Amino acid sequence: MTTLERLPTVEDVREASAVLAGVARMTPVLRDPLLDELLGADVFVKSEFLQLGGAFKFRGIFNKVSSLDQDDLERGIVIASSGNAGLAAALAARLRGTSSVVVMPEGSRPDKQAAIQTAGGTVLISGDSSDAALERAQLVAEHEGRAFIHPFDQLEVIAGQGTVALELIEQVADLDAVVVPAGGGGLLAGVALVFSALRPDVQIVGVEPEGANSIQRSLANGRVTPVEVVSTVAEGLGVRRCGSLTFELIKANVDRVETVSDDALITACGFFWNMLHVAVEPSGAAGLALLLSTDDFSGKRVAVVASGANIAIERLAEAVTASSLVLGR
Amino acid sequence: MTTLERLPTVEDVREASAVLAGVARMTPVLRDPLLDELLGADVFVKSEFLQLGGAFKFRGIFNKVSSLDQDDLERGIVIASSGNAGLAAALAARLRGTSSVVVMPEGSRPDKQAAIQTAGGTVLISGDSSDAALERAQLVAEHEGRAFIHPFDQLEVIAGQGTVALELIEQVADLDAVVVPAGGGGLLAGVALVFSALRPDVQIVGVEPEGANSIQRSLANGRVTPVEVVSTVAEGLGVRRCGSLTFELIKANVDRVETVSDDALITACGFFWNMLHVAVEPSGAAGLALLLSTDDFSGKRVAVVASGANIAIERLAEAVTASSLVLGR
Repeated sequence: MTTLERLPTVEDVREASAVLAGVARMTPVLRDPLLDELLGADVFVKSEFLQLGGAFKFRGIFNKVSSLDQDDLERGIVIASSGNAGLAAALAARLRGTSSVVVMPEGSRPDKQAAIQTAGGTVLISGDSSDAALERAQLVAEHEGRAFIHPFDQLEVIAGQGTVALELIEQVADLDAVVVPAGGGGLLAGVALVFSALRPDVQIVGVEPEGANSIQRSLANGRVTPVEVVSTVAEGLGVRRCGSLTFELIKANVDRVETVSDDALITACGFFWNMLHVAVEPSGAAGLALLLSTDDFSGKRVAVVASGANIAIERLAEAVTASSLVLGR
Repeated sequence: MTTLERLPTVEDVREASAVLAGVARMTPVLRDPLLDELLGADVFVKSEFLQLGGAFKFRGIFNKVSSLDQDDLERGIVIASSGNAGLAAALAARLRGTSSVVVMPEGSRPDKQAAIQTAGGTVLISGDSSDAALERAQLVAEHEGRAFIHPFDQLEVIAGQGTVALELIEQVADLDAVVVPAGGGGLLAGVALVFSALRPDVQIVGVEPEGANSIQRSLANGRVTPVEVVSTVAEGLGVRRCGSLTFELIKANVDRVETVSDDALITACGFFWNMLHVAVEPSGAAGLALLLSTDDFSGKRVAVVASGANIAIERLAEAVTASSLVLGR
């Protein structure tokens, strides 16, 4: 981010919603009576793992790509991503008839690379962190004249992610709390700004991995604060530094941000598989991981945003074993 | 089946729909632009893999259990199943406050057994085929006074499965065809009777595994005809003998029944994972397997009922590799 953008408002989210109509999926809210029994709460799983590309990312990125003027659009787009934002960008570019470059940090998952390529994106492996990949993407934007799409810290991106909250408000009445995974903070910021404007009584809780808690640190310091070294199985949340816009929105609108361990994330993936019969990646399971590790939500009506599907098969196998042990199978 | 039941009608399906309201999930219809491009058709994935218990089975079985009078209900239920119908029965029994016994054939998957037990069902392993397990379940019903629930061949069960079609008609206009996996034929019979009554112009196509094509054989012979030896990776469709009621309905209302190979089923599971980012079991992938192996549906608006999620992890890993090869990854 070189220029200071204004913060998105709920009006921007409503506009995003119109842009996404008929393109993004209105994802279902799943209930499960066994899960409710186990957690002692009414749990509403907002199933963004069913979004196009298998993650919520498509909403914000398609909204951003759709905001480009025709000249910019024709020169193509570039984004930095561990995978999900990259796939969303490749899909958005294809649907808008342009090309995409996705800069992925070294060590990025081969299956996520393949999915981006299948969707028509060009993968460029560069940098040893999310920060380094972002810098490289900005260079590509300058050199190739491509529009730089930030995976989380642009007005239209945040506004697009906020459409999750508009749907949730329509789908579930009388929520007490919404639990949202947070990496760079785009989804959390978007959801929080909508609830703050339309349902201010609903508690908004962010969840970060213990080894990637930039938002928690930033809130403690009062300014954006990176983590030294990212360490988490949840590559979608493995961000060194949360956004500037997202931080402002989170500071203003989020009730609190908690962390969960990698073990808790893996176990939660196994619960999704064994109890809800769906594949959810560690990043997407952060909300359920928090619910499984606290009784703060007992007796409450709580939505968890299950934000992405794209778990590696080997990881899923590990998760199923872990949760089977917890379930005493 | 000892007594001759009447065939269900669309009115029975409407009643089932009222029974299921607020309990079963109205499953979403997923679109995917890449899948449409690949198949050269407008494909509507009716996502019954998101049903409670991970399969469409819950609809019919909950409807049947709900039709029991209080005395019968209190004595509990018994069913025979390779897994999905058993889990549906265990969930239905729990929700209705009674007990369930699930007779599973030898060699049934341990993870499906565990899921049934987690839901409160008692698993009884017995018999070397679906037929043998059915006979044992009937004996348990007699000896323990439990209500015998047939996994596919009872009026209320078929009527419940038909609610998939009522939803589909509401969700998608102007379909040309609906492709439905078939084992015992409960889902196919229920869907076909509804379309025949309400949208007779829509083609209804059943899909069986090559190694479990009792319906195809029965249609050729004009009477219910078992296969000698069932051989398929799709354990949910691995039925020796289709139902009597289901056969009558299928004969009257289905346009044609096709078969697919095990390789095609596995590849289709991989496509669901790689392109739609969801886990679908081989039985549930039969519709997509057919679409991938023919161009009969080119340019058509075709719904595939993706009927179940519950794939074993090892099988999923195999499927992802198989489809990656096809996709040239």
